[in-house]
Amino acid sequence: RVALESPARLTLGGFALAILIFAGLLSLPAATADGERAPFMDALFVATSAVCVTGLSTVDMGTFWSPWGLAIVGVAVKVGGLGIMTLASLAGLAISRRIGLTQRLLAADESRASGLGDLGSLLRTVVVVSTTVELTIAAVLIPRFLTLDYGWHKSVGYSLFYGVSSFNNAGFSPDPVGLYPYSGDLWMLVPIGLGVLIGALGYPVYLNLLRERRPSKWTLHTKLTLVTIAVLSFLSAGLLALFEWSNPLTLGSASTAQTIGNVFFQSINQRSGGFASFDIGLAREQTWLLEDVLMFIGGGSGGTAGGIRVTTLAVLVLAAWAEARGRRDMEAFGKRVGTEVLRVAVAITLASAGVVLLGTAIFMWQTDIPLDRSLYEVVSAFATCGLSTGITGSIDDDAKMTLIVMMYVGRVGSLTLASALMLNRHRRVIRYPSERPIIG
Amino acid sequence: RVALESPARLTLGGFALAILIFAGLLSLPAATADGERAPFMDALFVATSAVCVTGLSTVDMGTFWSPWGLAIVGVAVKVGGLGIMTLASLAGLAISRRIGLTQRLLAADESRASGLGDLGSLLRTVVVVSTTVELTIAAVLIPRFLTLDYGWHKSVGYSLFYGVSSFNNAGFSPDPVGLYPYSGDLWMLVPIGLGVLIGALGYPVYLNLLRERRPSKWTLHTKLTLVTIAVLSFLSAGLLALFEWSNPLTLGSASTAQTIGNVFFQSINQRSGGFASFDIGLAREQTWLLEDVLMFIGGGSGGTAGGIRVTTLAVLVLAAWAEARGRRDMEAFGKRVGTEVLRVAVAITLASAGVVLLGTAIFMWQTDIPLDRSLYEVVSAFATCGLSTGITGSIDDDAKMTLIVMMYVGRVGSLTLASALMLNRHRRVIRYPSERPIIG
Ligand SMILES: [K+]
Ligand SMILES: [K+]
Repeated sequence: RVALESPARLTLGGFALAILIFAGLLSLPAATADGERAPFMDALFVATSAVCVTGLSTVDMGTFWSPWGLAIVGVAVKVGGLGIMTLASLAGLAISRRIGLTQRLLAADESRASGLGDLGSLLRTVVVVSTTVELTIAAVLIPRFLTLDYGWHKSVGYSLFYGVSSFNNAGFSPDPVGLYPYSGDLWMLVPIGLGVLIGALGYPVYLNLLRERRPSKWTLHTKLTLVTIAVLSFLSAGLLALFEWSNPLTLGSASTAQTIGNVFFQSINQRSGGFASFDIGLAREQTWLLEDVLMFIGGGSGGTAGGIRVTTLAVLVLAAWAEARGRRDMEAFGKRVGTEVLRVAVAITLASAGVVLLGTAIFMWQTDIPLDRSLYEVVSAFATCGLSTGITGSIDDDAKMTLIVMMYVGRVGSLTLASALMLNRHRRVIRYPSERPIIG
Repeated sequence: RVALESPARLTLGGFALAILIFAGLLSLPAATADGERAPFMDALFVATSAVCVTGLSTVDMGTFWSPWGLAIVGVAVKVGGLGIMTLASLAGLAISRRIGLTQRLLAADESRASGLGDLGSLLRTVVVVSTTVELTIAAVLIPRFLTLDYGWHKSVGYSLFYGVSSFNNAGFSPDPVGLYPYSGDLWMLVPIGLGVLIGALGYPVYLNLLRERRPSKWTLHTKLTLVTIAVLSFLSAGLLALFEWSNPLTLGSASTAQTIGNVFFQSINQRSGGFASFDIGLAREQTWLLEDVLMFIGGGSGGTAGGIRVTTLAVLVLAAWAEARGRRDMEAFGKRVGTEVLRVAVAITLASAGVVLLGTAIFMWQTDIPLDRSLYEVVSAFATCGLSTGITGSIDDDAKMTLIVMMYVGRVGSLTLASALMLNRHRRVIRYPSERPIIG
């Protein structure tokens, strides 16, 4: 089976094909509100953004597209989300079949222990779990939209869209005004925020959570993901509150309760969700820097979140911590973490940082937009987060292309590169003598 | 001996004491050109910058200080440079004495193999080598200044100052006009550039080079340092040329030969030297970003350069490369690099990135200067590079304090933290069972 033989090619080709198909659909006159054909670059941009569940857009999502156009975007997000889950697991399967001793293999082994091993049941689980969560979110939101007098059509459509958009961490809003008007509306923010939060955990985590109720029995991966996300959420919420509390353009005029709600909503969405309950473009520079870091870190592995993933950060921190404590092993929750994992984490982080820096330099060259907004935009694209300081609509086609490449590379890059390289793995018998350079 | 028992405390205290003494001397009326007492914050800033061989200044070095003031700065640089070398080696000695199996110990072992082991001979070598190089540079520069009609006093003084400032990677210029007028003058740029380059290699490297002429016999540390610096220099020179060739404010009007000379001079000084042959403040944003990265990487270990050090980067890259190739070991030049080294590299990089991000957020909060210039300034301070986009003179005292802390932490932080933690090292007999989180 081709899928199992070459998951890298399947991922690269599958995503490219899906993007082109949806770009074609979005180029139909029926997709836009005014019935005019959308410029192809914008159709391509939004299709890429939807399939990669990024959430950036060069056009105003709520006013530019017709209901048909929005439905196409919603389907693209759903397809992209399912594809990401399935291909991630397929790659794990293929690698574990080919050779016995790789990094990914053991990851796949662990996944198999959590029930991801069998392909058929895997696909079924992915579809059932995601659709259940999406429909639940929609069911909670429909009455809210009805009470706001959106009418049945819009209420159902918007609610389904938000359900898909939040659980798949896409961050698109179908509403012309986005989520800004609901910054004090918990009935809106809580289900959407929960959808984003659950989606960002990744399948290995919530399958583990669904099947094992005793926290002490959770896998190390689950514990690391949950703890890292919890720590990052509270830390970033605190810093956001500190930075924006006194900013009259964002949260300065909000009540204390509303500020707390907003900073937590924002701190969840900085990870990979991409919804914004206030205008990021008016936030302080230090907030942008904070969000650059959080977007780069991203969410959980094996889900629709992007970035280097929270477990990658966790492993780097565990390594530094073990070093600081003078321990021989990296340890967490009574388990030892092998040094091979650290190498993977370093490789992913280094490659990601390189791509982001290169993309930012190119983007700045193309747009002459200063580092603050350029870095934010490029990190957001690469980490498939979708937050923006508001420049996406005003850039030229060549800069749009840079972001399209960033979204595509950020989504399919790490997985395919890693799995492709893993399949080339070959062992050497001779080992060189050891010598140590001086570090730091 | 106290120095060997607690190198961390000695380093922290020694640098703080030296900074205060030189700040006191620079506060004397005789130190300034106009005979008025310098504001204490400026005296403290320049003293910190000199002792930490950073090169940032809140005042115009060439016009603010009297010849006496400049002499004090020169002595501070010389003292700081010698202190850095000596304390770095002392820490290595102390650690190797206390326990047998640490990261630093093996580094010290290797240093001992290169002749750094014996304290007395170490100190002698440090003083002799550095003074020889400094005087050589000065001897080359004196006739140049004489031909430019600076007169004997100034020619000798300036030449000595440039000798000390370049070899110790301080980057201070005694000239009111700095190096800008000499951007086409190879007689100036070559000796200064060579001084910076040699100084940035670090003692372990040039002691190795002095004692072993056959490249094949060089230590892995020497090879990694030289290759990484060579690759970074050519890469950054190429990118600089690409970015600035068409910039009329910097190199746009220069001849091809002059541009090539300037990009190489600049690419050497981005590492840690801090001299600038054109105005960085007028360079393009992507040049700043490039220099942010290069400053953060810094120079060689065990020298006056700052940053995370080129060998730290090299180890991270080797880890990613080994992972990509599917190799069990990190390998370079026919040697295996142990995974413990990778942990140290990760710890240093993570801690440095954290300090820089925190410092930048605080600096932006204090100054309201956008990310581009703020990040550049903070990285430059932390990595003791000393390049600036030109904002250092215009910031408030609290932001000056932030930079002072960054310079101090960047200089003494990694060494003392590492050595202090190493001395607390204790072994555990039990090992936890191994479990692997999913990465990336
Ligand atoms: K997103
Ligand atoms: K410097």
